Amino acid sequence: MTSIGIYGSMGRMGQAIAAALPDFGARLAGGADVGDDPAELARKADVLVDFSAPAALEANLAAARAARTPIVVGTTGLAERHHRMIDAAAAEIAVLQTGNTSLGIGLLSRLVHEAAARLGQDWDIEIVEMHHRNKADAPSGTAQMLGAAAAEAMGTTLAEAGVSDRAGLTGPRAAGTIGMASLRGGSVIGDHTVVFASDGERIELTHRADDRAIFAKGAIRAALWLPGRDAGRYTMAEVLGV
Amino acid sequence: MTSIGIYGSMGRMGQAIAAALPDFGARLAGGADVGDDPAELARKADVLVDFSAPAALEANLAAARAARTPIVVGTTGLAERHHRMIDAAAAEIAVLQTGNTSLGIGLLSRLVHEAAARLGQDWDIEIVEMHHRNKADAPSGTAQMLGAAAAEAMGTTLAEAGVSDRAGLTGPRAAGTIGMASLRGGSVIGDHTVVFASDGERIELTHRADDRAIFAKGAIRAALWLPGRDAGRYTMAEVLGV
Amino acid sequence: MTSIGIYGSMGRMGQAIAAALPDFGARLAGGADVGDDPAELARKADVLVDFSAPAALEANLAAARAARTPIVVGTTGLAERHHRMIDAAAAEIAVLQTGNTSLGIGLLSRLVHEAAARLGQDWDIEIVEMHHRNKADAPSGTAQMLGAAAAEAMGTTLAEAGVSDRAGLTGPRAAGTIGMASLRGGSVIGDHTVVFASDGERIELTHRADDRAIFAKGAIRAALWLPGRDAGRYTMAEVLGV
Amino acid sequence: MTSIGIYGSMGRMGQAIAAALPDFGARLAGGADVGDDPAELARKADVLVDFSAPAALEANLAAARAARTPIVVGTTGLAERHHRMIDAAAAEIAVLQTGNTSLGIGLLSRLVHEAAARLGQDWDIEIVEMHHRNKADAPSGTAQMLGAAAAEAMGTTLAEAGVSDRAGLTGPRAAGTIGMASLRGGSVIGDHTVVFASDGERIELTHRADDRAIFAKGAIRAALWLPGRDAGRYTMAEVLGV
Repeated sequence: MTSIGIYGSMGRMGQAIAAALPDFGARLAGGADVGDDPAELARKADVLVDFSAPAALEANLAAARAARTPIVVGTTGLAERHHRMIDAAAAEIAVLQTGNTSLGIGLLSRLVHEAAARLGQDWDIEIVEMHHRNKADAPSGTAQMLGAAAAEAMGTTLAEAGVSDRAGLTGPRAAGTIGMASLRGGSVIGDHTVVFASDGERIELTHRADDRAIFAKGAIRAALWLPGRDAGRYTMAEVLGV
Repeated sequence: MTSIGIYGSMGRMGQAIAAALPDFGARLAGGADVGDDPAELARKADVLVDFSAPAALEANLAAARAARTPIVVGTTGLAERHHRMIDAAAAEIAVLQTGNTSLGIGLLSRLVHEAAARLGQDWDIEIVEMHHRNKADAPSGTAQMLGAAAAEAMGTTLAEAGVSDRAGLTGPRAAGTIGMASLRGGSVIGDHTVVFASDGERIELTHRADDRAIFAKGAIRAALWLPGRDAGRYTMAEVLGV
Repeated sequence: MTSIGIYGSMGRMGQAIAAALPDFGARLAGGADVGDDPAELARKADVLVDFSAPAALEANLAAARAARTPIVVGTTGLAERHHRMIDAAAAEIAVLQTGNTSLGIGLLSRLVHEAAARLGQDWDIEIVEMHHRNKADAPSGTAQMLGAAAAEAMGTTLAEAGVSDRAGLTGPRAAGTIGMASLRGGSVIGDHTVVFASDGERIELTHRADDRAIFAKGAIRAALWLPGRDAGRYTMAEVLGV
Repeated sequence: MTSIGIYGSMGRMGQAIAAALPDFGARLAGGADVGDDPAELARKADVLVDFSAPAALEANLAAARAARTPIVVGTTGLAERHHRMIDAAAAEIAVLQTGNTSLGIGLLSRLVHEAAARLGQDWDIEIVEMHHRNKADAPSGTAQMLGAAAAEAMGTTLAEAGVSDRAGLTGPRAAGTIGMASLRGGSVIGDHTVVFASDGERIELTHRADDRAIFAKGAIRAALWLPGRDAGRYTMAEVLGV
């Protein structure tokens, strides 16, 4: 029975993961939170999941490397330097990093990449997401992940191609851009749609998160998939075998 | 057989209206365009439709008033002073002004008003629209009309409540606001959705324009409905009997 | 503080209602289930809600009438004879009966009625709903309620106009019919869309239930609205003031 | 400049293809319709497209084989024996057969296959399509094509897994089935959505045909892609490089 150690075990995701472990035939190796030593948990767990905070990432990754324990990083709000830490750790151990642990978003991200790669220049790409009224940033990290997947397939980056200020006299749409729009309201957990629009036809690829439990379940699936993998950096799409 | 005079008869809408008149048992009184005298057309038509340009509105309304001929104003891009001209004309003749002559949008506008009036403060309102890649302004005039309908029902105005720059660290959604988002791409004629989101449930009211012919057909229906009405300002909703 | 008595208090809805009462400043008068005498509860409650079972309806209504206590009937699976019992009770006390206690569906039902009444014969009406994989009947009771609202506005009944077997060589769509389609899958709580389709344009009116709590909350709102009303039969739309 | 010969040149699709050829830098080799000899056209064209009728398919394929000219078969309503004819021809020449020549549906079909292959047994698949009120059969051929793509990925067939009579007391959804639902109304050219629903999340893959011109354009792209290919049977997905 695989044992899973949770960094950020007292947070909402940490608790949800711990609660769902028995459904997957896994067991809790233990948890570590602010002030705890991450090293001990890394040594006794078969695999780690980190839903703590960006500030804790460096120490958590160091503990995982020292113990040679694979780790799933689901912490959000990562900056460029956090990604460099992850790349460094991935030279020695297996690390799966994702901004969204649902399997559905993992697949959608892959489908968006494929569609953007195949459809070519005369298909315009637009992304619209909706989240609850308390979400304080826009667009969502997941929308940015989907936009980045599309941009990569187009040979560019979202920083380069993304447009999120469409209001007023905008002029005609610039070719090769990716529009990003955000709706906020009610208690919506998270809906994302990527629209591909050409002359006379449209493709819309949508994901709806109906229950927050999917994020804990996906994190556990990722954690169970990771042990035994070579050192390297993985994504949710690979958990799906895509 | 009602005779209809068209201001802006050489434009896309003017031509579409002229072409569709026989389907409605109506006939063309004639057309007037830039440089033509609007007065003669106003005298010989039973009802006028104006799809020319804001700059021509003043003269067209004056001609309609002088001849006491009712007029449908479908010209877009009107400013506050154009609306004052329309109000002045409506003191003497029947004037129907609308930014969208489709019957479906006329009804949707009414449904949005009713929903906003009934649902109360704990339902957040968001509007998202999609148009073709060549549309040069955002949000669409129709989205603004729908937003204004919602705002009026909430006892405010869209100028006051509208939010169309949701990007970055926005903080939680401010209560009583109306979010406006615009997608652009392909050849989409015009899709509009008004979302009402509360804790645990959502209502979405959508209109899809699948064929530009609906705008000409709606304009003709409005024109056929107008003769015989009292002086005053009318909307598409009233053509539907709402 | 209004006191609410619950028939079917041990069921899922009964428990959810009891749990949510404090949020509405109401209190539990008590509960009655199979084998309990409904009369005592009817005497001590200010208002009753019934989410028990069709077989218990007759006794529950009799108890409410005897005590002159208003009652919300949310039990589903009612047959024609149950509706006759409700009509008989409504001659003496206030009774609100509904197949769906969410406020959103209450409003949607009203909007569907209005749209069907205004749009006329050249707009075809189709209803599609999606529910979780364990739902054992189709179309949903709520879809039937929406269909009935549309049918009534068209001067017919859903029994007359409804079509739910569209497969194979169907021939062209018969005018004046209402198509009903059902999707099943996953854990979807309940999505409903009513489509109005004409030449060149469509209106889609959608409700999404994202959390089952809306049904308990709506039932409580209905219960708090009912005391003091005249004898008669009411609907959720009236709770909204529509 | 590639020359294209059209079987069924007087039909709606045949005429639309002929009209669009110049936009693609192609030219019309000629057309053949009922009563014409297909052999001559096959000899003088670089590539053939067939939008005639199932009854003409055998002769058209024989002409193509005799002349060793590749052929795009877009005729709909094909039976099992027509597919055997196509397989036989494909042993000698390049044949691309499809029930829907739009590039968007070509891609969607591929994405549906991939999603169905990756998501596994706990994701239920449902397909819903909407077409205009005059369409006389249901579900659409394109919906069946999408269903077949999903079924193949699941290791079954649509004949085995498809369910299109969901009404009444259906009982819980049977695992491994594919639900098919059809809406009819207005002038809708063709919308298709494939829903994948699991516990707590959904993926929806949608295609909207906004203009019939996409079918002619896609047929021409397929025709320009085919010359020079080895003998064999191809699909629209391959035109996209998928």
